[in-house]
Amino acid sequence: MVIDCHGHYTTAPKALQVYRDAQIAALKEPSKPRQKGVLNITDAEIRESLEGAQLKFQRERGTDVTIFSPRASGMAHHVGDATTSLHWSEHCNDLIHRVCSLYPDNFVGVCQLPQSPGVSPESCIGELERSVNDLGFIGCNLNPDPSGGHWTAPPLTDRYWYPLYEKMTELDVPAMVHVSSSCNPNFHATGAHYLNADTTAFMQFLTADLFKDFPTLRFIIPHGGGAVPYHWGRYRGLAQDMKRPPLDELIRDHVYFDTCVYHLAGIELLLEIVPVDNILFGSEMVGAVRGIDPETGHYFDDTKRYISQVESLTPDDRRKIFEGNARKVYPRINKRLATD
Amino acid sequence: MVIDCHGHYTTAPKALQVYRDAQIAALKEPSKPRQKGVLNITDAEIRESLEGAQLKFQRERGTDVTIFSPRASGMAHHVGDATTSLHWSEHCNDLIHRVCSLYPDNFVGVCQLPQSPGVSPESCIGELERSVNDLGFIGCNLNPDPSGGHWTAPPLTDRYWYPLYEKMTELDVPAMVHVSSSCNPNFHATGAHYLNADTTAFMQFLTADLFKDFPTLRFIIPHGGGAVPYHWGRYRGLAQDMKRPPLDELIRDHVYFDTCVYHLAGIELLLEIVPVDNILFGSEMVGAVRGIDPETGHYFDDTKRYISQVESLTPDDRRKIFEGNARKVYPRINKRLATD
Repeated sequence: MVIDCHGHYTTAPKALQVYRDAQIAALKEPSKPRQKGVLNITDAEIRESLEGAQLKFQRERGTDVTIFSPRASGMAHHVGDATTSLHWSEHCNDLIHRVCSLYPDNFVGVCQLPQSPGVSPESCIGELERSVNDLGFIGCNLNPDPSGGHWTAPPLTDRYWYPLYEKMTELDVPAMVHVSSSCNPNFHATGAHYLNADTTAFMQFLTADLFKDFPTLRFIIPHGGGAVPYHWGRYRGLAQDMKRPPLDELIRDHVYFDTCVYHLAGIELLLEIVPVDNILFGSEMVGAVRGIDPETGHYFDDTKRYISQVESLTPDDRRKIFEGNARKVYPRINKRLATD
Repeated sequence: MVIDCHGHYTTAPKALQVYRDAQIAALKEPSKPRQKGVLNITDAEIRESLEGAQLKFQRERGTDVTIFSPRASGMAHHVGDATTSLHWSEHCNDLIHRVCSLYPDNFVGVCQLPQSPGVSPESCIGELERSVNDLGFIGCNLNPDPSGGHWTAPPLTDRYWYPLYEKMTELDVPAMVHVSSSCNPNFHATGAHYLNADTTAFMQFLTADLFKDFPTLRFIIPHGGGAVPYHWGRYRGLAQDMKRPPLDELIRDHVYFDTCVYHLAGIELLLEIVPVDNILFGSEMVGAVRGIDPETGHYFDDTKRYISQVESLTPDDRRKIFEGNARKVYPRINKRLATD
C-alpha cells in the first residue's frame, strides 16, 4: 500500500471560495452579528473536483490513499479573529469529511485548526476533538505562525502550545507543521514562507526539551524538512556545539520529514541523510508546483517516481517510507485502512 | 589560488565587544549627546586574534585569501538607530581595514553597512563609498531584514533599495545577502534565520525584474543558497508556472551561491545542481559551527575538503569555484591580488 501523507483539497468547488470571500467581506461590518453561514456544495461537485485531479493522479502514479486536509494557503489564520477562524475551519473540515465519506478508500482526513494570532492554542482543542472523535480524522495541521509571515507567536517549544499538545497526546494524533499564506511581502508563500517555517520549526525542536515533556508527541515537517537535510552537517555541528543529543536520537520518535522535494537529486539527498524511519512518502500533489518538468517529461510533484529511482533503498525501506511510517506516526489510520 | 569568499572577524579582540556594550548602554541615556567614541585595540591584539584561528586554518586547509567582513551576527542593525549603526559600522569596518593592512596577502575587505530599521538604504551610501574608495574594500554585506527577525523592510527587489544598488553598480561591487542576529525568539540565528533569509532572497529575485533595471548588479547568497539547491526542482517548477525565465538564465550574471554547506552530501548536491559559474568557494570558518565532525574527524566547516572529494569536477570547474568566479563577482579583488 502507498500512503501519501501530504495532500490538500486545492481543487475544492468554487462555492468554498465564495463563502470565504463573503466571510471576509462581512468583517468590514463589525456591528452585524457574526454568523457561521452555510456552504452549498453538492456531492456531484465534490466528485467532479477530485475525479480529474487527485483521484486521477492516484491511479496514474499508483498511490492508494492520501492523508487529506484543507488547502494550506487557504487557512489564512491571520484573517479576522478566532470566531472567523472557527467558522472557516469547521466548514473546511466538514468538507474534508465529506470527501473522505464519498471516497473512504482514497482519503483519510486531517484537520485545519481554528488558530488566530494572539489567541491561545487552547481555543483549538474543541475543533481537534470534533475532527478526531466525530469526523474520524487522524491528525491536524499546526501553523507555527498564525500571523501569516510576521512570526508573532511563541516558538513551538514554548509552554504556550502545551494545552494543544496535551490533547494531541491524549488523542494520539500527530501534527504536520504547516504555515499558510503570507501577508508579509518578503515571503512568497510556497517559495519561501513554507520552507522557512519547516527550517525554523526543526531548529526550535533541536534547541528545546519539548519531547521530554511529551514523550509521545509527533510532528511531520513537510517539504522534505525545508533546508534541513541539505544542511544536515550544519545541524549536526550546531547540536554538538550546543551539547544537544545527536540529531538521529533527537528526532527518532518525534520529528518526521515528508518527501515533497521535486527533483531526483533532492530526494536522493533526503534518503541518504535522514534515517529511513523518519521519512514519510508525500507529494502535496496538485499543490505548489503544477507543471511538468521539461527535463523529465513528468510532473514535478510526482515524488513517487523519484523515490522509485533510488536503487539503494531496500524493499523494507520502501515499505516504511510508503506505508509503515505513516501507520506509525498516524496510528488512527490503522482503524481506517486494512493491512495489505 | 584559493579565495574563500565568506569570512567574518568572529575572533576580534574583546575591546570590540566592550565598545559595543558601552554603546548599547549609552542608548539608555538618550539625553546625552551621541558620541562615536574610540576603539582601543593594538596591532599585537589583532595579530593574536588571527594567528591561532583564521590564519592557522588558511595554512592547514590550503586556502590563500579570505574575503573578510565584520562578524555578521554582531551587525545587529535592529539595535539603536541610524547613528548607532553608523558609529558601530565605521569602527567595525576600520578594524577590518587594519586586518587587511597587516595581512594584505591573506585578507581582502568587505564592509558592514550602517543599516537601521525604517531608514532608507540611501543612508548607507557614504559608508559604502568610504569602504571601497578609502579602505580598498571590494563589496558589502547587505541585510535584507535590519529589524532582526521581524522582516519589516520591503523585499530586496523593491525600489526602496535602488539608491544603494545604483551606488553598488557605479562602484562595481557586489553584495552578500546576509542577515544578522535575530531578536525574534522563533528564529535561531545560525540555525534558522540565516538560512531563511537566503531562501527568501532567492525567491524575491526569482519573482521580480530587478536585474532588468540593474544589468550588472550581483548578489552572493551564502550558506549554499539556504534551502534553494535542495529544492531546485520546486524553484524550476515555480518559475515555469509563473512564466518566469529558466533559473539558470535568471541567475547567470546576478545570483551566486557560496559553498558554506557542512557535509559532503550537501556539497555534492550543490555542485550537481547549480551551474558551476554561479558557485563561489566559501567556508565561513570559525563561524556558525566550530566543532569537528566525529564522522570524518575533520572540522565541519572545512568545506574545501568536501569539494576536493567530488571527483566529477573538472580542473577548470575547480578553478572557477576556488578563484575565477570570485574574481568575476568581486572584480576589485583583481587590483589587490596578482594572478597565479
